[in-house]
Amino acid sequence: MSLKKIGFIGAGNVAWHLAVSMHKAGLDIVRIVSRSASPAKRLAKETGAAYSTSLRSLDAGAEVWIMAVPDDAITGVLEHLPSRLPALVHTSGSTAIAVLDGYAERTGVFYPLQTFSAQRPVSMQEVPLCIEAGDVTLREDLEKLARRISDNVRYIDSKQRRQLHLAAVFACNFTNALYGVAEQLLSGEGLPFELLHPLIAETARKATEMSPFEAQTGPALRNDRKTLESHLALLRNHPQQAEIYALMSRLIQEMNTKKKK
Amino acid sequence: MSLKKIGFIGAGNVAWHLAVSMHKAGLDIVRIVSRSASPAKRLAKETGAAYSTSLRSLDAGAEVWIMAVPDDAITGVLEHLPSRLPALVHTSGSTAIAVLDGYAERTGVFYPLQTFSAQRPVSMQEVPLCIEAGDVTLREDLEKLARRISDNVRYIDSKQRRQLHLAAVFACNFTNALYGVAEQLLSGEGLPFELLHPLIAETARKATEMSPFEAQTGPALRNDRKTLESHLALLRNHPQQAEIYALMSRLIQEMNTKKKK
Repeated sequence: MSLKKIGFIGAGNVAWHLAVSMHKAGLDIVRIVSRSASPAKRLAKETGAAYSTSLRSLDAGAEVWIMAVPDDAITGVLEHLPSRLPALVHTSGSTAIAVLDGYAERTGVFYPLQTFSAQRPVSMQEVPLCIEAGDVTLREDLEKLARRISDNVRYIDSKQRRQLHLAAVFACNFTNALYGVAEQLLSGEGLPFELLHPLIAETARKATEMSPFEAQTGPALRNDRKTLESHLALLRNHPQQAEIYALMSRLIQEMNTKKKK
Repeated sequence: MSLKKIGFIGAGNVAWHLAVSMHKAGLDIVRIVSRSASPAKRLAKETGAAYSTSLRSLDAGAEVWIMAVPDDAITGVLEHLPSRLPALVHTSGSTAIAVLDGYAERTGVFYPLQTFSAQRPVSMQEVPLCIEAGDVTLREDLEKLARRISDNVRYIDSKQRRQLHLAAVFACNFTNALYGVAEQLLSGEGLPFELLHPLIAETARKATEMSPFEAQTGPALRNDRKTLESHLALLRNHPQQAEIYALMSRLIQEMNTKKKK
């Protein structure tokens, strides 16, 4: 049996991108349930689904409910479920599958490893969909479902997924914050952030085509003390950025030392 | 008058990419001078230039010498120049133009804002070439020369360039080091770094198509305390990574607070 009728709990960025991809792939999105009426209504309209703002309406004939809510809202949603569901999965990187125990006949995880923003289309085909399931039949069903929208489907258990999510925070959230620091530093000199666009694109390409260790360049790697000191001097009025500068430079030097050994 | 005969001091990654681009654009690379014979020979062969390992051979009819050596080698090279040159530029982000005073009739800077690795082709056309010159005629000559190989030529003074280089260290070197941390974390769970490739590519695209501030996502931004704590617990045996985690999370939260104000 394959899962064809899908319900969503949540109408945020993750729910939006998954539901729209599934709808386009010919799957039947039966209902969007979200506390906020207006995103639920928009997503329902986009996917031909019904919508509701109450968890009491989880009886819409969905073969699986995909709960795509913020990590810290998961427990609250579970506690307000009106009854045991036939199948329930969450989409959280850092939450174990066990949190769903007792709330559905079959439980699983459907974690898309990507950064989603509103109004920004993402090519779901390439997004790694990380599947976990409490039993073999749901595992097969979820893998089939995932392959309808992505070519990159993997079985990842809760322990691995937690570590994967942590790695993603470094590679995505922290990286983006460093872009933000760079933008601030440029604007202080009246320079546009666009100057860095080719460098940012090439840095990302290099790390994936070579490897981060091989791709490393810069004054910290060369142990160019004069440049390191002059950079720290430039940051003397930005203590937090200076602290990041010192810490990241030390990390680069230690990683490089380990590599050489 | 435009500069057509170019000499290079240095045969590393920056010299390689500039000289090869200029050669392809039909400019005449007359000589490569580098302490190490073998890279000088390779680059000379690639560009149809002569080569030498001695600074005493700076008489090859070059209209401008481009000194592309590591930042901390610049002073040493200058001190060993046999005579005052007609025109001399350096390619350093963090070095003021004034360091060249007295070593040439005309002095300038030709700073390509990109991360270069050996054997890795770069589309020079898009690379910002940041020009500075001690006088108006050299400025015009350098801008003409730069436009032969790039569509992205800018006049940037020494103070701005220093700040630009600092911003580039955050956006490129530190970002790449974070990719390295992510790779280490994954390998600890037997997961391949390839899993993060789509996320890394999208994070870079988002920051340039939206802006880093708008693009920010993740547990720190949401102030999801449970996830932040569980991530720090995962890093208990990696004190340096834990310190980076705490510092970057705090930075994301403070940037977000400022944005809202």
